[in-house]
Amino acid sequence: MHFPIVALIGRYQDTGLDAPLRELAALLSEAGRTVLVESRTAQNTGVNEYDCAEIDEIGKRAHLAIVMGGDGTMLGAARELAPYGIPLVGINHGRLGFITDVPLQEVTRAVTDLLAGRFETEERIMLQGRVVRGDEVLFSATALNDVVLNRAGRGGMIEVRVEVNGVYMSTQRADGLIISTPTGSTAYALAANGPILHPALKAVTLVPIAPQSLSNRPIVLPDTSVLDMTLTAISRVETGASVHFDMQTLSELQAGDRIVVQRADHVLRLLHPVGYRFFSTLRRKLHWSQMPQATDSLE
Amino acid sequence: MHFPIVALIGRYQDTGLDAPLRELAALLSEAGRTVLVESRTAQNTGVNEYDCAEIDEIGKRAHLAIVMGGDGTMLGAARELAPYGIPLVGINHGRLGFITDVPLQEVTRAVTDLLAGRFETEERIMLQGRVVRGDEVLFSATALNDVVLNRAGRGGMIEVRVEVNGVYMSTQRADGLIISTPTGSTAYALAANGPILHPALKAVTLVPIAPQSLSNRPIVLPDTSVLDMTLTAISRVETGASVHFDMQTLSELQAGDRIVVQRADHVLRLLHPVGYRFFSTLRRKLHWSQMPQATDSLE
Amino acid sequence: MHFPIVALIGRYQDTGLDAPLRELAALLSEAGRTVLVESRTAQNTGVNEYDCAEIDEIGKRAHLAIVMGGDGTMLGAARELAPYGIPLVGINHGRLGFITDVPLQEVTRAVTDLLAGRFETEERIMLQGRVVRGDEVLFSATALNDVVLNRAGRGGMIEVRVEVNGVYMSTQRADGLIISTPTGSTAYALAANGPILHPALKAVTLVPIAPQSLSNRPIVLPDTSVLDMTLTAISRVETGASVHFDMQTLSELQAGDRIVVQRADHVLRLLHPVGYRFFSTLRRKLHWSQMPQATDSLE
Amino acid sequence: MHFPIVALIGRYQDTGLDAPLRELAALLSEAGRTVLVESRTAQNTGVNEYDCAEIDEIGKRAHLAIVMGGDGTMLGAARELAPYGIPLVGINHGRLGFITDVPLQEVTRAVTDLLAGRFETEERIMLQGRVVRGDEVLFSATALNDVVLNRAGRGGMIEVRVEVNGVYMSTQRADGLIISTPTGSTAYALAANGPILHPALKAVTLVPIAPQSLSNRPIVLPDTSVLDMTLTAISRVETGASVHFDMQTLSELQAGDRIVVQRADHVLRLLHPVGYRFFSTLRRKLHWSQMPQATDSLE
Repeated sequence: MHFPIVALIGRYQDTGLDAPLRELAALLSEAGRTVLVESRTAQNTGVNEYDCAEIDEIGKRAHLAIVMGGDGTMLGAARELAPYGIPLVGINHGRLGFITDVPLQEVTRAVTDLLAGRFETEERIMLQGRVVRGDEVLFSATALNDVVLNRAGRGGMIEVRVEVNGVYMSTQRADGLIISTPTGSTAYALAANGPILHPALKAVTLVPIAPQSLSNRPIVLPDTSVLDMTLTAISRVETGASVHFDMQTLSELQAGDRIVVQRADHVLRLLHPVGYRFFSTLRRKLHWSQMPQATDSLE
Repeated sequence: MHFPIVALIGRYQDTGLDAPLRELAALLSEAGRTVLVESRTAQNTGVNEYDCAEIDEIGKRAHLAIVMGGDGTMLGAARELAPYGIPLVGINHGRLGFITDVPLQEVTRAVTDLLAGRFETEERIMLQGRVVRGDEVLFSATALNDVVLNRAGRGGMIEVRVEVNGVYMSTQRADGLIISTPTGSTAYALAANGPILHPALKAVTLVPIAPQSLSNRPIVLPDTSVLDMTLTAISRVETGASVHFDMQTLSELQAGDRIVVQRADHVLRLLHPVGYRFFSTLRRKLHWSQMPQATDSLE
Repeated sequence: MHFPIVALIGRYQDTGLDAPLRELAALLSEAGRTVLVESRTAQNTGVNEYDCAEIDEIGKRAHLAIVMGGDGTMLGAARELAPYGIPLVGINHGRLGFITDVPLQEVTRAVTDLLAGRFETEERIMLQGRVVRGDEVLFSATALNDVVLNRAGRGGMIEVRVEVNGVYMSTQRADGLIISTPTGSTAYALAANGPILHPALKAVTLVPIAPQSLSNRPIVLPDTSVLDMTLTAISRVETGASVHFDMQTLSELQAGDRIVVQRADHVLRLLHPVGYRFFSTLRRKLHWSQMPQATDSLE
Repeated sequence: MHFPIVALIGRYQDTGLDAPLRELAALLSEAGRTVLVESRTAQNTGVNEYDCAEIDEIGKRAHLAIVMGGDGTMLGAARELAPYGIPLVGINHGRLGFITDVPLQEVTRAVTDLLAGRFETEERIMLQGRVVRGDEVLFSATALNDVVLNRAGRGGMIEVRVEVNGVYMSTQRADGLIISTPTGSTAYALAANGPILHPALKAVTLVPIAPQSLSNRPIVLPDTSVLDMTLTAISRVETGASVHFDMQTLSELQAGDRIVVQRADHVLRLLHPVGYRFFSTLRRKLHWSQMPQATDSLE
């Protein structure tokens, strides 16, 4: 039997999630699976007729976690559950849904397929990093999408000295700097003119946000790279700098602080319906390479 | 006699400005000009052996203002003095010096030329705008470079609905939005991938910062355009939005606030040494269109 | 009576144009207008029951020319008729239709409005230029969209030295160089990462195609600029260079050839249905600033 | 003894290569190495006092090939010698020298180091591909930098349908399409706004040249990808399309032709002086991320 114990995780702020969650739980129960509803999800949605479990217990007991919500929910669940090696599948509830790629209306078919063993597994690399001030580690975290180092406040720029594997790479003056995984390459990094990285690529990309240098360009590095970034200056009119691991933020960075980022020890295992196509998601959700009027003939 | 009364304005935070200011004042005095030192400049630099004057008095009495410092100093002086129609010339003191285009070491020759009537006059358009909440005008200001509407805080995006002359143009989701004059087109707008606008162009450009839409592009509009931007949403994880008129900031914008920007009633008159070349400044200071190794032959 | 004599011009290569042309001619006749069918149009479509006229005669006699086809047809008609000052309106027949902005299905209503005096007039600047080798002018032409100087053949780059109003601007190594009007700014120049210029702007933009220099950026110049471009080198592996005025091509340029481009003496007068919106065309036809999934809420 | 038999290859069109080649050959001889001068090099430079050898013989006998010239010479030598597994080192003779990274004036020290075993080895992936018309393979070749599919002639666009590993990816309308290795990512692909790929990355990038779609972006794919590109249309005003494997060109492509590209079976082994830094090359030769005036303080 595939996935004898299945955990359900829902978007905490969402209203109207209780009905689809109950349907999903019923489907799983009828299929003979043990259902664990994540504690905060149960509390917020009122779906409390099943066993509740903290993330830690889910990580230890469940064979699969089904996440219902948007990509933000998925980012959180991925960070918490990836260390346990438990695979995730995402059900999109009214958001862009780039990682949560199962549409809500197809949940029955998709979950039935999953339980029957019909799915594709994809491994996504994650980032881990820490903020160091002098000898002290101020903060450490993981990220599925990206680590963003940027000005915290109202104007001005930050200046960052970047070393890769101990070798000086460049000094960047910009609104900020994005270190992105392939998963994050279609999120904020893409808005900042970064390249799209195929999910299977073992790589990270470093993308500057509004860089002062006209000759600055994004660079793609092997995922074995250790990036060591020192905040060398924060401009006068500026109130500070921040670093964000996905949506986890540390503000009030100071000149001299170092942010060290590398590939995390664990990967995220994502399950997809058979026939999942990354390129199709790019075209449909980002309108990637969409023609001016699709039906045009070539002039 | 050209410019019988000349005002001197210096960068407030600068140390070491007293010596070049004194030399300049002496040169002007010897040439029979009345020298007015701007009050804060006199106070900060200790150059107080000449007549002091507040900006308002300078605007009313002086025939020329010489600004010594960086572009930031020039932006401030331009905003304060442009309404009086008094022409400005900028002496670059250790900064990028895009508008303050006379190098410090050439000040004697440049000022001698100015006093002899050998100079070129350039008119630069400026922006004026206001922030409106409901019926109330919260803030109004002018800008020589740009008006920037952006997220104030740590992450997330803002969403802005833009109308031009009462006609809906587009809705933008981005880190921010820059409305730039030709003067500002080589500053922040250029870092955000905006086009370079020649200073003589009667135009403004609207440049998004890290726009979510892949098909977003900068647009250049006639300087007769009235841009009416409504902040329609600020993303959840965000602490607010700000607007900046050059370096004058209003924080704590709310969804629903409107920012209305148009060309200011007055222009800035900049004086340049004869032979001033905008294109040369682009090449020297921004390395614009600089070849990979200038001496290369074509392969 | 508005427009007593109306000329009809159709896309020469189009099949199926005879029926809509006949409908349009009948509509005009019934409204008491004299119809002139352009000679090649009459010949190719078989719509020969009306008076035929060469372009020259149309230019001298007609008060309005209605162009049916795609933007290519419009570009040709504009170049030929603009010198006569005759206004044009474009009916889109199955193409992108950026300038030919009346959809075929709305032709009756649009033309009825025109004849009743309900329309908006827009003036579009055009370019004129010449190719000079030594003392000889090899070629001269006008363009509504752009003048493109590029490598003619298979690989390699061209190198072009650009002067503006007799002042050296830059030397560019690239696949090519586009000098575009506002009208052309949404065509090829946009594909090469140029800015969108509002049609009312009195400006031209210079956009490099795949420039070798990382710090190259598009520049926007006043439409009073005279651009003098000298082809300084053509790379070894290259078979030549060409220049295109819209779709009129001169191949076999040589190193040393000069291409001089400036605003044409005449403008194109375009008529639009009342309510024509340039911004709406941008959004609908180019998907400009289209969001990833329009219905998304901000996350 | 490291590298007992060393081959010398020089840029064919170069004058003035004989003296440095003779010096180099003498240095190798004195160090007890057997020197093979590549036949065409010997003939063109007159350096014929050593054994001559065709490329094939060099591939079979030599333990190292030293290439003197520019990157073009290196591209050719790499294609010919990589299948034999023989390592290459490049001496830069008056060109940009991105791959030929030993400056001519340091050749003695660099070669002495090599012979003493002090060097770093880097493996660069290459591409192999073929052009297929119906059942026939028209052309097949390898490339170290890139495969470029583009319009051959004067204007217009090509339309290309791209499949990756048998899955439809996108349809592109553009001047052309570049499939680039990490080595090629700092050449033409960079001019077309592609990302920089670190040489150690096992990846290829697909970069469109002046794409018609505003939402088009470069994508980076694993080097296990098979790209199958079908030329679906060539625009009317166009004289044809070409494909280039580095500088080997096949012109006169037709609509319906397929270009299939994947990683080559062999890699290129490049030897570098100890201390070679890819990032340093980026900064020095491409001015990558160079600041507006390096000495500026942050304002």
